[in-house]
This record gives sequence, structure tokens and C-alpha cells, in this order.
Amino acid sequence: MKISAETFQLETKYPFVIARAGAADQRSVFLEIAHDGKVGLGEAHPSSYYYNETPEKVLEVVAKVGDLLGDDPFPIVDIVARITEAFPDAPAAVAGIDIALHDLCGKLLGVPVYKMLALNPANTPRTSYTIGIDTIDVMLKKLEEAREYPILKIKVGVDNDMEMIRAIRDNTDAIIRVDANTGWGVDEAIEKINALEQFDIELIEQPIKAGDYEGLRKIRQNTNIPLMADEDSITTAELPKLIGCVDAINIKLMKCRGLCEALRMIHTAHSLGMDVMLGCMTESSLSLTAAAQLSPLTKYADLDMNLLLTNDPYEGLKVVDGKIILPESPGVGAIRR
Amino acid sequence: MKISAETFQLETKYPFVIARAGAADQRSVFLEIAHDGKVGLGEAHPSSYYYNETPEKVLEVVAKVGDLLGDDPFPIVDIVARITEAFPDAPAAVAGIDIALHDLCGKLLGVPVYKMLALNPANTPRTSYTIGIDTIDVMLKKLEEAREYPILKIKVGVDNDMEMIRAIRDNTDAIIRVDANTGWGVDEAIEKINALEQFDIELIEQPIKAGDYEGLRKIRQNTNIPLMADEDSITTAELPKLIGCVDAINIKLMKCRGLCEALRMIHTAHSLGMDVMLGCMTESSLSLTAAAQLSPLTKYADLDMNLLLTNDPYEGLKVVDGKIILPESPGVGAIRR
Repeated sequence: MKISAETFQLETKYPFVIARAGAADQRSVFLEIAHDGKVGLGEAHPSSYYYNETPEKVLEVVAKVGDLLGDDPFPIVDIVARITEAFPDAPAAVAGIDIALHDLCGKLLGVPVYKMLALNPANTPRTSYTIGIDTIDVMLKKLEEAREYPILKIKVGVDNDMEMIRAIRDNTDAIIRVDANTGWGVDEAIEKINALEQFDIELIEQPIKAGDYEGLRKIRQNTNIPLMADEDSITTAELPKLIGCVDAINIKLMKCRGLCEALRMIHTAHSLGMDVMLGCMTESSLSLTAAAQLSPLTKYADLDMNLLLTNDPYEGLKVVDGKIILPESPGVGAIRR
Repeated sequence: MKISAETFQLETKYPFVIARAGAADQRSVFLEIAHDGKVGLGEAHPSSYYYNETPEKVLEVVAKVGDLLGDDPFPIVDIVARITEAFPDAPAAVAGIDIALHDLCGKLLGVPVYKMLALNPANTPRTSYTIGIDTIDVMLKKLEEAREYPILKIKVGVDNDMEMIRAIRDNTDAIIRVDANTGWGVDEAIEKINALEQFDIELIEQPIKAGDYEGLRKIRQNTNIPLMADEDSITTAELPKLIGCVDAINIKLMKCRGLCEALRMIHTAHSLGMDVMLGCMTESSLSLTAAAQLSPLTKYADLDMNLLLTNDPYEGLKVVDGKIILPESPGVGAIRR
């Protein structure tokens, strides 16, 4: 197998601001793995904020990974385990390779990834549409642009977040999910979540900083809106710790190193009675479509970043009335524009 | 898709006796699902003792399942979920259909099931060879016949079981696993497991009756040999209850309804820090080979029933120096003799 990669600057319509992180690095690394006349495409979107991983680090992994790929793309579980062991601090790089291998194997077999995984593409969920932190005026303008999406994800974690949510609820009947991105303290979260009940909120994502399981448990015992872990839910290793703390988890390929681990997380979460959201970073349609291949298994999706980009280099999943439509072409099914 | 089925009486070299169950019904039901010029083969081995399911019940499900199969064999997860909902009390029937669908899809794609599942066939574990309850003389005779197998599973749960194990350990250096099949009480289990330590036992399977989680926890806290659940580990639903109770679980396709649920159980168990054994009922090489497709993911295997049959109608997995060798042919890879 031959692997190559290049960085690409993704541009968003609005600066993408979340609580405590500020503007994100918007560079992705696109990978190609060639084998037996087919080319598998992958995307790595590293997060310097959460995981101290950069596009440069991804390129370094790609340059060094050579022999670890082996000469058979099919035993992906094994290949990804080997590469994870060699590069434990490069989850996005591993995710990019995992995605490219799934794309390659699907192309070699001539079937979409969802078919390899025995899933029904008709069962995809609806995706939410994310409204990032901004002035209330700009957020209401974004809301106007989001009319066609039946589920909204509102980023909070700033001083006036209650006003923000009130202004948005006053102007829409859409389902609203609230994402605090670790922006609150425990007591603040309890107070705000209880106050949010009046606005009919579907779920609250990652209210407090990661790792504070007792804090999450206290919030859950003192509020009614379902809680979802994001920064607290990286790989299957975290899930047993979250028992009794949350009702759902957000899985992102760039956190968990790709589809192999995402599938393990989905199965484990369901067994523990937790619902699952498939989420994303600032990614193109390539890795979004890869994540969407697993979405027939999940209740929630937040795979909307392609809707927020102005220069998405790939075409893949479609969103119709909010529902994710998977491409029928082999592999991941994303095509370079 | 067209489905058909027939019962088949499997014959074992020795009567197969386990604690508290006595001799088992040795009839399997072989299924065929035809679609698009290919035929998927499945096997259902119902257990009247554990699950009140009979070959007649399996044939009834096959006769009624028709429309629920649909006209596309690939979304197996969905098809199996539909059939499980319609026939909740027929786990072996559902397993037989799940196996036939995996075989069919592999044949339609022209690849073995392990390849569809992204697994490395080189990673299969060694299987144990089971020695059923008998007089000590006969068990020692069976031991002689088992010389080529490096791992033995000894069935216990009778009055003289300590003598049995001592006699076997005196005559072999093989790894020994002990399976009580719910045959002990809690205090009896603690006493016997501690006494068994001198015989270098790898693990103890299902010491007490199913459902007594407090009993299992007490045994685990008062003994040192790793504990494995079998009758207590049916589907993913049981696994969270087993946290702190056992070190490993035994997954059988006929308990959990096939490969889809077995895969979910493997991922969940690993996430909960439990090791996994793939086990079997009195089954032919057809369903044993189906289970073996997942074995690259598991530490333990007890897929030896083909070695104990005198009229196995299928040829599939091989065992060389104890290690499972998967066939390379498409689908499950079992062929009618």
C-alpha cells in the first residue's frame, strides 16, 4: 500500500467559536492510500486545543507509517491497532488512515461501507445544524439561514447564554440541543439547566470540564434534561466511568481514531443504556460521510460541518429535511469536486 | 429471498453430559437462504434445557419468517432485529438466519466473513477440547484421545469433581479450564475453587446458578482463579450486571442470536475489562465456523464440537495444534461433505 497526504485550509461561513476554545485551526489533512488499482481517501482533522495534535504531526505520522500498513488493507482492526500503538498521541492521523482503509476496502469490494457493516442506509437519523457563539443579532441571522433544519445545536458557555437561548426559542419551533463545551461549573450547570427546561431543550452536551464524573453525576441527579458527554467520551475506555453520569455520548472519528473504534463505542454505549450521537470537528464532507456510514446505528447525528463550509473540497452525504442521505457509491462514497 | 430448513441428528462419540442438564437434544436445524444465484447456509441448534426452544420451534419460525427477511440480504443488523422482535423466544432460530445471511452476503461479495468484518484471520486463538462428565476411568481415556490439544475444558459439578480434576492434572501438563455449568452453590464454589488452585487452573466457568450476581461477586472476592460467565451471559443486556462479578464471558451464537449480537457483546465486554470466549452447543462445523469468524477478536475459544461428532455433515474450520484455522472460501466457508 502507498500512502500520501496534503494539508487543506477549510473556510467557514462564520468564525467557529466554542466556549473556552476560541477559533479553531481549520486545516484538515487529506490522505490517499493506493492498493491494487484503487485509491482510498481519508481525512484527518487534528485538534491542537483538545489533543495537542497538528496537521504537521499528521503529516509526520503519514511519512513514518509505511511498513505498519502492511500489504493487505482488509484487516483494518489490526492495522489500526498497530498504528495506534506506534502513534498513541495522533488520534486524527489514525482516524484519517482508518477512513482511507474503509474507503479502499469498500472500493475493492465494490460496495458502500454501510453495506460491509450490514447496516440499512434508510435508518440514518436527522442531523442537527449548529449555531456557534456570536452576538444575539448574528445568532438570530444564522437561525434564519437554518430554517430548513428541524434540529438546532446551540453553542453556549458564555455570560449571556440564557438570553441567547431565550431569543432563539422565541424565534423557532425547532428541536434545540444545547452544547456548553465544558463552559459551566457544576452548580452553574444545575442552575442553568433547570432554567433551560422552560425552553424545551432536547439535551445538554458536556456542561462541565472533562474528567469530573462526580460533578456530572451531581448535575444528572439535580436536573431533568438528558445529558450527553463529548469531551468526556473519547474512546470505549471512558464509557464505564460514565455509567450513572450521562444519558448519551457524542462520538467523533477524530477523537476515537476512526470507524473501528466508533463501532466499538456505539455497541458499548448501547449496552450501557446510553444513546449515541455521531459528531464532528471542522471537517469536510469526506470524513463526515465516513462517520455517516455508521449513523444507521445511532439516535442522534451532528454531521453538519459541510453545511457551514464555503470551500468543501468533497461531495458526499446529503441532508434532506434534516435527514442524512448516504451516497450509494463504493467505499465512503465521497468524491473530490 | 427464499428460506428453507431441515432437522439433522448429530451423533457424538460420547454421550454429552453436563451438570444438572443431563444428555442434550442433539438435533440441529440446517437452513438455506437463496438470493441472486447464491445460497447462504445457516445452523440453528436450539436448547430445550436452557431456552425451551426445540427444532420444531425453529422450523415454525422458518415457515413464518418469509416477509420479514425482505429482498436485500445486506442490512443484516436490521433484518435480525426485526426477526428477533417477531420471535423473541427463538434465539437459535434467529442465530441460524443470522449465520445464513452472513454466509450469503460473503458469497455475494466473494469474500470470507472475517474480511467483511475487517479482521485478521492470523489472530485466531487456540480452542479448548472439552472432556464431559463421566467416570474417572472414561475421562482419563478421553484425556488420552485429547493429547494433541494444548487446552482442556473439564466439565464438573458432581460429587467427585475434585478427584476428577486431580486425576486429570496428574496425567497432563495441558492448560485446564473448569466448567461447573451452574453445578455449585456459592460457599461450595469458594471452597472448591480455592482447593483447585493447586492444580493450576486457567479459569472457572459459571460456578453457580444464573442470576445470582451477589453470589458471583462473593466468589470473586474470595478466590483467585479468573471467573467466566456462561449461563449468566446471554446478550449484551446482561453485561453491565456482571461488572465486578466476573473476569470473562462465554459468548455462544445460539444464546445471543448470531454474529451481529456476538460482535456487540465482544466490544462491550472488552470495554468493561472482560475477556471473551467464543463457545458452542452441540453444533456442526457450520455454525462453529461462523463463530470462528469472530475469533480473531477474542482471547479464548471453545469451538471443539466438530472434534467430538461422528457424523459432522459440514467441513469448515480446522484445528492445528489447538489453533483455529479459518477457511479462505467466501462467506462462512463451511461446505457440505
